[in-house]
Amino acid sequence: MNKTIILNSRPVGKPQLSDFKFVEEEMPALKEGEILLKTKFVSVDPYLRGRMSDAKSYVPPFELQKAMSSGVVAEVLESQNEKFKKGDFVSGMLNWKEFQTSIGENLLKIDDKIAPLSNYLGVLGMTGLTAYFGLTEIGKPQKGETLVVSGAAGAVGSIVGQIGKILGCRVIGIAGTDEKVEMLKSKFGFDEAINYKTTENMTKAIAEVCPDGVDVYFDNVGGTISDSVHANINRLGRIIVCGAISAYNDTSVPQGPRVEHFLIRKSALMQGFIVGNYADKFPEGMKHLSQWLSEGKLIYSETIVEGFENIPQAFIDLFEGKNKGKMIVKI
Amino acid sequence: MNKTIILNSRPVGKPQLSDFKFVEEEMPALKEGEILLKTKFVSVDPYLRGRMSDAKSYVPPFELQKAMSSGVVAEVLESQNEKFKKGDFVSGMLNWKEFQTSIGENLLKIDDKIAPLSNYLGVLGMTGLTAYFGLTEIGKPQKGETLVVSGAAGAVGSIVGQIGKILGCRVIGIAGTDEKVEMLKSKFGFDEAINYKTTENMTKAIAEVCPDGVDVYFDNVGGTISDSVHANINRLGRIIVCGAISAYNDTSVPQGPRVEHFLIRKSALMQGFIVGNYADKFPEGMKHLSQWLSEGKLIYSETIVEGFENIPQAFIDLFEGKNKGKMIVKI
Repeated sequence: MNKTIILNSRPVGKPQLSDFKFVEEEMPALKEGEILLKTKFVSVDPYLRGRMSDAKSYVPPFELQKAMSSGVVAEVLESQNEKFKKGDFVSGMLNWKEFQTSIGENLLKIDDKIAPLSNYLGVLGMTGLTAYFGLTEIGKPQKGETLVVSGAAGAVGSIVGQIGKILGCRVIGIAGTDEKVEMLKSKFGFDEAINYKTTENMTKAIAEVCPDGVDVYFDNVGGTISDSVHANINRLGRIIVCGAISAYNDTSVPQGPRVEHFLIRKSALMQGFIVGNYADKFPEGMKHLSQWLSEGKLIYSETIVEGFENIPQAFIDLFEGKNKGKMIVKI
Repeated sequence: MNKTIILNSRPVGKPQLSDFKFVEEEMPALKEGEILLKTKFVSVDPYLRGRMSDAKSYVPPFELQKAMSSGVVAEVLESQNEKFKKGDFVSGMLNWKEFQTSIGENLLKIDDKIAPLSNYLGVLGMTGLTAYFGLTEIGKPQKGETLVVSGAAGAVGSIVGQIGKILGCRVIGIAGTDEKVEMLKSKFGFDEAINYKTTENMTKAIAEVCPDGVDVYFDNVGGTISDSVHANINRLGRIIVCGAISAYNDTSVPQGPRVEHFLIRKSALMQGFIVGNYADKFPEGMKHLSQWLSEGKLIYSETIVEGFENIPQAFIDLFEGKNKGKMIVKI
């Protein structure tokens, strides 16, 4: 029998284990043109929370009682598709199933000799590309500028900070434990890092570590942390709105200070994006990321949880900040 | 004796007549290299409210017990500066004085044969340039797109809407009286206009007149009006944050729904600006504006109040929406 994880109920507030359900089903039968895939690694990401709701968004919501899906690395067990052969590894958006068939559309063949397979769900996948394109296309950081990253110890944040350093910026990270703060500085080369949970006045703390103000803010969290960065933004500053994990579980639109006033006063920009906007430039991004990775300029952190049955808990743990870097489940 | 208007106290909330004081002083004596100017027209603008506070901003605050200043058109009465001669008209940032001397720096010679003198404080001055550069440089409207303008019957808003029509957009205006709404449609050629004061559900009202959503939003007001436009913004929408008159008199930062979520969901952009950012392109803007004006494609509305003694009241009336188009005081 094959195992699958379906969306059992739409979460209200924080997702619960009961929002998911494990279902057994027949092993899929292979048809002409298809490949049979065995799941090796599953990516769990904060954005999935949005798809579990039925609010209008940039991607359609998950359907109730249907399989969940996310970024997956899988091995080709059998192939009736000439583009793939047995033993190939692929990555793409696939279901949370131990085994599944696919016509191979939108699947990328990946090479475990260039980088570990799990990397293709992170630094060489959507995570790395999100960091790269958000920072370079919207943030346009210049050498000598100050870059602040929130959610800096997260999958995207840690890559953003390192790219910032590669591009010659002074880089400040914001994270939620002393251990993460230490790691940002010692492992990822951030110039400074701040633990927002133990800092009383974040606005003042940011001002202190950013004596020349903040030119670029890569925002993964939103909320009051962002308010304190906004208060330090420079004239012609750029705010890359990548995520708002602080609000993903809110049941109503969170309230906060209106931004219009400081945007005018500072001629500043705030821009949201999804990585898909830059799909035509993915090869360029992959090229830079894999080069920096091979040169050792880019260090990549993963939290790997083992076991198909632990996918829902790994997802829930994201909202507790239990991951360091990209959260991946190994099957 | 010469008359001048000084800043007597920094307003708390809405400006009061008592925040200003009329002072008599000696007539200025002309020195080598200077010109003697007689004030003809004075521009009063919402942004001056910001300079009356001592909060950090893009321009330094007005000093207490010193003359107020703004955009002024003046006549040269005497000249000891070879660049100007008696009878010339000039525009520039000058003091609220009946007579004053200047070394002529940053003053622009203007021609009352091309357009009425007051136009140089509006459609052919900062007002028109603000509309032109905000819309074209940040909004980048494409033919067939939908443009919404708040504060649409104001000086900047009425020009923005007309440029939108010239560039081939569907244009919707938001204003605060039925008379203004009617004027936007009949006089300025807006496709639709909404009176926000008599409309119960603005989000729904905007959705109804924007069946294809909102691609570009030129925001002069901020606040709840903007919330209802944000709710209708399209994917890759652009929000030009030009003004937030709804909050200029607030004594604390106004609160509202956080914008990060919809910015991400729609890959939308919000950008603040001041017209000075585009100073190197002013000649290009003036060229387009004066051409459209001479072709009759651009109609320009002014509210002209008479009398030097009425400058403070004209400024205060801006916050009551008593002006239609640019508010100017004729001396």
